[in-house]
Amino acid sequence: MFGKNKVKNIKALSGVLELTPAEQIVFERYKKEIANIYEQYGFIPLNTSTIERSEILFAKAGGDTEKEIYRIDKKGDSDLALRFDLTVPLARYVAANYNDITFPFRRYQIAKSFRGERPQKGRFREFYQSDIDIIGDGELSIKNDAEIISIIYSIFTKLNLGPFIIRISNRKILTGALEQYGVTEDAVGVIDKWEKIGEKKVKDMLLDMNVSGDDIYNIFRLIKLEGSNEDKVRALKELDISNPTYLQGVEELEEVLNLTKLFNVPEDYYTLDLTVVRGLDYYTGTIYETTLVDFPEIGSVCSGGRYDNLTQYYVDRKLPGVGVSIGLSRVFSAVKESKVDDVSTLSKLLVLPLTDDISEAVNVANTLRKAGVSVEVYMEEKKMKQKMNYANKKGFRYIVLLGEDEIESGEYTLKNMETGDQQTLNLEELTNMMLTDI
Amino acid sequence: MFGKNKVKNIKALSGVLELTPAEQIVFERYKKEIANIYEQYGFIPLNTSTIERSEILFAKAGGDTEKEIYRIDKKGDSDLALRFDLTVPLARYVAANYNDITFPFRRYQIAKSFRGERPQKGRFREFYQSDIDIIGDGELSIKNDAEIISIIYSIFTKLNLGPFIIRISNRKILTGALEQYGVTEDAVGVIDKWEKIGEKKVKDMLLDMNVSGDDIYNIFRLIKLEGSNEDKVRALKELDISNPTYLQGVEELEEVLNLTKLFNVPEDYYTLDLTVVRGLDYYTGTIYETTLVDFPEIGSVCSGGRYDNLTQYYVDRKLPGVGVSIGLSRVFSAVKESKVDDVSTLSKLLVLPLTDDISEAVNVANTLRKAGVSVEVYMEEKKMKQKMNYANKKGFRYIVLLGEDEIESGEYTLKNMETGDQQTLNLEELTNMMLTDI
Repeated sequence: MFGKNKVKNIKALSGVLELTPAEQIVFERYKKEIANIYEQYGFIPLNTSTIERSEILFAKAGGDTEKEIYRIDKKGDSDLALRFDLTVPLARYVAANYNDITFPFRRYQIAKSFRGERPQKGRFREFYQSDIDIIGDGELSIKNDAEIISIIYSIFTKLNLGPFIIRISNRKILTGALEQYGVTEDAVGVIDKWEKIGEKKVKDMLLDMNVSGDDIYNIFRLIKLEGSNEDKVRALKELDISNPTYLQGVEELEEVLNLTKLFNVPEDYYTLDLTVVRGLDYYTGTIYETTLVDFPEIGSVCSGGRYDNLTQYYVDRKLPGVGVSIGLSRVFSAVKESKVDDVSTLSKLLVLPLTDDISEAVNVANTLRKAGVSVEVYMEEKKMKQKMNYANKKGFRYIVLLGEDEIESGEYTLKNMETGDQQTLNLEELTNMMLTDI
Repeated sequence: MFGKNKVKNIKALSGVLELTPAEQIVFERYKKEIANIYEQYGFIPLNTSTIERSEILFAKAGGDTEKEIYRIDKKGDSDLALRFDLTVPLARYVAANYNDITFPFRRYQIAKSFRGERPQKGRFREFYQSDIDIIGDGELSIKNDAEIISIIYSIFTKLNLGPFIIRISNRKILTGALEQYGVTEDAVGVIDKWEKIGEKKVKDMLLDMNVSGDDIYNIFRLIKLEGSNEDKVRALKELDISNPTYLQGVEELEEVLNLTKLFNVPEDYYTLDLTVVRGLDYYTGTIYETTLVDFPEIGSVCSGGRYDNLTQYYVDRKLPGVGVSIGLSRVFSAVKESKVDDVSTLSKLLVLPLTDDISEAVNVANTLRKAGVSVEVYMEEKKMKQKMNYANKKGFRYIVLLGEDEIESGEYTLKNMETGDQQTLNLEELTNMMLTDI
């Protein structure tokens, strides 16, 4: 049977973040911690389909995304494709299930999306996103825009990935300012590159687009405002811009910043930053980006904003929303080296039977599991050295050895694998200890 | 903006089990409960890629499955396809990551697979499976085969879907008996249909395959053994069959049944059943199927078994395993009508601010969340009637109304939405009550 017709290339596809057991454990913990915070804020999980009819995706995609869509080739089936984000399927879901949904609809989804990108650092063909959105029916209070900031703050604090900054702007400000100065809206796409390419190159590109030096000066003065959030808001109000879109943007942004204080988000963690543009997206109000200070090279790890009408391609109904998406695979690929210990078990305790009869080992495990403790029983008939090797390699914190003496006396030896300490306990004492040990 | 270029068909793809918010909440609870039990038994989560190189999948697929594989059509990319189960990607993963894995390797995966089947009741194009496998390096104790039964028992007890039967056999028994009688192994595929088409039709099909009446009599006598598990094992031993594969199968099955008792699985919940064959699969020892007594029409909801060599298509190494897969989408689609209440929130409490200033509402929510209670704050400026309507429709158990009086006094009115009872509490009392309320 061996050696014939073997598949030669058995590595995971490039551009897929396939994890080792030890990494997967940490990744799953992140997913759980994030979901837990979403749920604490009243979001419910939603699970839209992975495969969509292509027309659903192409209605929204546009630009580079369109080229990246994975289409499915299946005889006799309609034209299908894999979702490239979680927002478009959400829009389709909300439009299709409008009558089953109570608005405002707060949903989260932590799931994979798919893009046929050229694989490179931080870019994946198959990647996790962790999205929340709040969708209103006809209208949606701007208070939600501030709550989103509070949620981002809670999550990145909980994940403990070092300092981070939530950068906040409002799309109407730049749009209105460009209108005021009579500058083409295409400038938005160029200014969006500010963080990546820097001020000088943005200037050159705007000059190439025939934006005048004066206008560039005015726009840059706006973007480069300094000081506290209050200082910046004050300066925005004092600029000689009367465009109503601009003024509404400034007012919205001020309200969001004021509300954010209410949510107890420390001021070190968020900042008004007009270089945040989200150029290629469909946002119409508040916009967010989030940077991990220790990992600047991966760019924004949590971006999003407010959109006037999520479902415009699918239904004649105004459903405004606000939401953000965490690039979970990107975050994890950056932090995993420093965050993953070499532990590949979720059980604190390994029960090692020393006899062929595993009755007592199973009894101990059953009792502990009933109490809510995760326990593994080592089932293989191996030599002691191999058994201990297994316990060490997987990283169990405790082991219990069950030989004939222990079974007869009902007194078990618990060994702490980190310290080497041993103690003798009966089953009740063992259970209590496992329940109280953190 | 409205009305132009709308996508007309916005329903989810047929054959995709897309859930309502209330359904999704129950489905996610099932997923969590199942994962929790897997983890209690020492399994760790694994997340293999959704997209594989087609050659990986085709190496193993065969038969009808091959026709059902969704292939991806992407210019400039290699030949890719979507996984049709979770076992083949596991095999590829274990082969590729052999050096990073500590054996026996116990992993679970609860995730979607994809098959281009003609959608019908209980069959999906995109469906959840919930798999566990234990994979050994070179060998794997048969004790694991019994532990799997204990896990199936724990899960279906926890899910509370009514009575169920775990039907157990050993593939070697039928294989050995057929060898003994000189009957073609193709008979396995026919006997596999026993439950679906019944004894009479199986007999006709065997006759069509030129199996003699005598042989059919002998095979049927074997399959139709009655009595307790002990009775059946005794009868299997007393049959005049000397084929060594058969004898080994009987011995293994007896050991698995004996070990299962150790795990405290009540005897009502499992039975030796030789009509269980798993005909088209690659099992070589113990095999399992599980039937929900109240939902016989959906067939087996949890099937699997022991295989000698999981990774034979990918690596020259003997890696035997044992595992089962729960057809989670199939189960859920059958039970959801009776199991889903009309609740579309995970928060017990909705805080309803009656003033435009939401400071106090946010303060209450922050305090409760810090204590681990999920709370939603209603953010919209709507009339009282609409606010109450929201609370009712989503199914919150409690609401707190925060008007000027409450804010000033620090005494809040908590309303139980089921009973209509109201009580007055300060923030500390409210927190304690939410933490102790079940």
